[in-house]
Amino acid sequence: MNTADLGLPVAVPSTALFTDQYELTMLQAALRSGTADRRAVFEVFTRRLPEGRRYGVVAGTGRVLDAVENFRFDDTILDFLRQRGILDEPTLAWLADYRFRGDIWGYPEGETYFPGSPIMRVEGTFAEAVLLETVILSILNHDSAVAAAASRMAVAAGDRPLMEMGARRTHELSAVAASRAAYVGGFHVTSDLAAGFRYNIPTVGTSAHAFTLLHDTERDAFTAQVETLGSGTTLLVDTFDVAEAVRTAVEVAGPDLGAVRIDSGDLLLIAHRVRQQLDELGAEKTRIVVTSDLDEYAIASLAAAPVDAYGVGTQLVTGSGHPTCSMVYKLVARADSNAPGAPLRPVAKKSMGAKSSVGGRKWAARRLDEYGVAEAEVLGTGPVPAELADHQLQVPLVTGGEVVAREPLDAARDRHIAARARLPLSATQLSRGEPVLPTEFV
Amino acid sequence: MNTADLGLPVAVPSTALFTDQYELTMLQAALRSGTADRRAVFEVFTRRLPEGRRYGVVAGTGRVLDAVENFRFDDTILDFLRQRGILDEPTLAWLADYRFRGDIWGYPEGETYFPGSPIMRVEGTFAEAVLLETVILSILNHDSAVAAAASRMAVAAGDRPLMEMGARRTHELSAVAASRAAYVGGFHVTSDLAAGFRYNIPTVGTSAHAFTLLHDTERDAFTAQVETLGSGTTLLVDTFDVAEAVRTAVEVAGPDLGAVRIDSGDLLLIAHRVRQQLDELGAEKTRIVVTSDLDEYAIASLAAAPVDAYGVGTQLVTGSGHPTCSMVYKLVARADSNAPGAPLRPVAKKSMGAKSSVGGRKWAARRLDEYGVAEAEVLGTGPVPAELADHQLQVPLVTGGEVVAREPLDAARDRHIAARARLPLSATQLSRGEPVLPTEFV
Repeated sequence: MNTADLGLPVAVPSTALFTDQYELTMLQAALRSGTADRRAVFEVFTRRLPEGRRYGVVAGTGRVLDAVENFRFDDTILDFLRQRGILDEPTLAWLADYRFRGDIWGYPEGETYFPGSPIMRVEGTFAEAVLLETVILSILNHDSAVAAAASRMAVAAGDRPLMEMGARRTHELSAVAASRAAYVGGFHVTSDLAAGFRYNIPTVGTSAHAFTLLHDTERDAFTAQVETLGSGTTLLVDTFDVAEAVRTAVEVAGPDLGAVRIDSGDLLLIAHRVRQQLDELGAEKTRIVVTSDLDEYAIASLAAAPVDAYGVGTQLVTGSGHPTCSMVYKLVARADSNAPGAPLRPVAKKSMGAKSSVGGRKWAARRLDEYGVAEAEVLGTGPVPAELADHQLQVPLVTGGEVVAREPLDAARDRHIAARARLPLSATQLSRGEPVLPTEFV
Repeated sequence: MNTADLGLPVAVPSTALFTDQYELTMLQAALRSGTADRRAVFEVFTRRLPEGRRYGVVAGTGRVLDAVENFRFDDTILDFLRQRGILDEPTLAWLADYRFRGDIWGYPEGETYFPGSPIMRVEGTFAEAVLLETVILSILNHDSAVAAAASRMAVAAGDRPLMEMGARRTHELSAVAASRAAYVGGFHVTSDLAAGFRYNIPTVGTSAHAFTLLHDTERDAFTAQVETLGSGTTLLVDTFDVAEAVRTAVEVAGPDLGAVRIDSGDLLLIAHRVRQQLDELGAEKTRIVVTSDLDEYAIASLAAAPVDAYGVGTQLVTGSGHPTCSMVYKLVARADSNAPGAPLRPVAKKSMGAKSSVGGRKWAARRLDEYGVAEAEVLGTGPVPAELADHQLQVPLVTGGEVVAREPLDAARDRHIAARARLPLSATQLSRGEPVLPTEFV
């Protein structure tokens, strides 16, 4: 896949500079010391879920695959590194030929995860694998944070559709990734045209308060909108007086008016009043859309209200209080020499308990109880116990440098719904609590 | 400036799809109803600062200018909008010729702001101005959130240098914008190579725990690093035992060792011990760098510790608890007709108090007391009082569609330091409180 296939407007000439400088200086030092070609295993995991969260959601995997394929050092980038004096010529020459030729395994996108889950594992020479740390973490930390929030909102919304509308509250390209992650987590549509373009997510949007204020009267605005978008459109009814706006809306659009949107005020109270008014006006099928600073708790509080769809912005794209995950990319095993086939030795940081980790290349499986409900996240470095062999979580993503796991976004979305359904029921409580599965190292 | 000048790796073919769909449907309806060419004034402001914050920091202005220049609908984009059935042919034809030809005024980048401050004002036809809502808000909401956190951290750090190291904890392109905003807010360097490339911010980086773990001994790792990066490098001393690592580090690099980095544990305690040990080893000039989950409070708590530089990641790029600002883009005035010179009429949403706003095109000035210290943010829609004429905050950014205010990033950084220095002393308290200036509407 070349960069053009990555699509407008997120095409980037290369992902190679989405890198912390120390990855390149480590590369240079390792090339000099002769350790660069030691086989190495890096794992991506988090030591904890955000406080109170019951499960995590893997998202961004597909974007990681794009980023790894596109991680190349062209002349412009090499000249930058040369002119800044960051690297010596042998290292620059090495980078000119770089492309990742190793293997990546990981939890498939949409799967749930828990503290310690090795959601991605990168194997190759130290040199080729160390370079991918920052770009992989950027993608997984951001996208998984949004997907986790989206998943909780989807649980709260039940069967009602969720619209992603947060582009304006986050970086313009984060917004595109956030729409994608929200879709994986269970959202249905987005307002962000770039997300529609890049990821083929359905897009929605009709009008803002500015459109009403542009016109001499609210009736003029509604008439203009219905004339061009049809009576199935959504009219925004809270610019002036809601009751008057609803009356005008039905007069202008007729009883087939698609929906009214309420973007401020006490949504519970107003939704009930508007529903009653719509029904009295004969617009029984006109839907009510609400969009005012919603999060999963606000959505849940409207479960009994006559609301037909939710639009969510800020709290979604900022992870509902947890805008990033704390995933790290750690060397867990490496060979003692450059010799092909040299055995891997587990390694781990030792000092200061809180940041230490478990060495060794890990398998991961989810143990189910007799009813098929997940009861533990089981990790190990030895052989996989026979009873867990069919419940392993990691799949091949990149083999010998070739991406082997590209899939439509809907596959990740469907997988998430299925994975969440296999968790204990307490997973979908919105209240704060412990991770719903214990992590066991065997 | 064409897109190539925007630089790798953040070049985008167009910013036009960083847009919520409703902006385009409003355009189509306004073209149909004949109101599209009414002169309109949109203002960007926030109704409140994040809870407890004393001031806001305008950041992203320079990126907005790039985005506005590059907001063009090429054939690929038009085909997408056509195929999705989002717009009719007259609207697509209108977009094909689109470029912004209006005027933008705003607070210059790095300036401080308060609730209600009209930090940007976009004037043009409704059609041309309404399209810019999302991309402008995305940039200002993200970048200003990071800059505000950076500014607080810079205050806490005093004269000690601050390193931005958060790329891995946010979207890969947010990270580039975050480095830029952090620089405006007072950071000195970044680990993010893309930020160095795109914005010419100085970059830093040496090694991670993985580099030590790659080698057979810590001594081997330190030797390899010093051989390639020189004795002025920074050695990471908390992989195994800190005291032993510091001893090895000075043995390997000599007393001219540049710095040691501590990335875990009780930084206050460890910094004191390491300083004492370094001094005893004759490495009095070796600096101590700390980098473990810092925020402005942790930095402040280390003020009396022998620490020479701080590296900050997660809390910086996520705005230290406030990853977005709540800036909105509101129509505040518009003409009654398309006639050139038709007078502007103030408009504002009226219902539901919390989201209502003040209509009319506003000037803004900062009133100073007799000592030159700011005492109020003064906003008005009438004539500017004579005594405030020289203290107005808005400057021309785009005139007749041409960018007129491009400047080096250092200008914004210097401006922020000066602007903050003119605020009351309580502005730089880290504790929660009210905005340090009242906003007065006259």
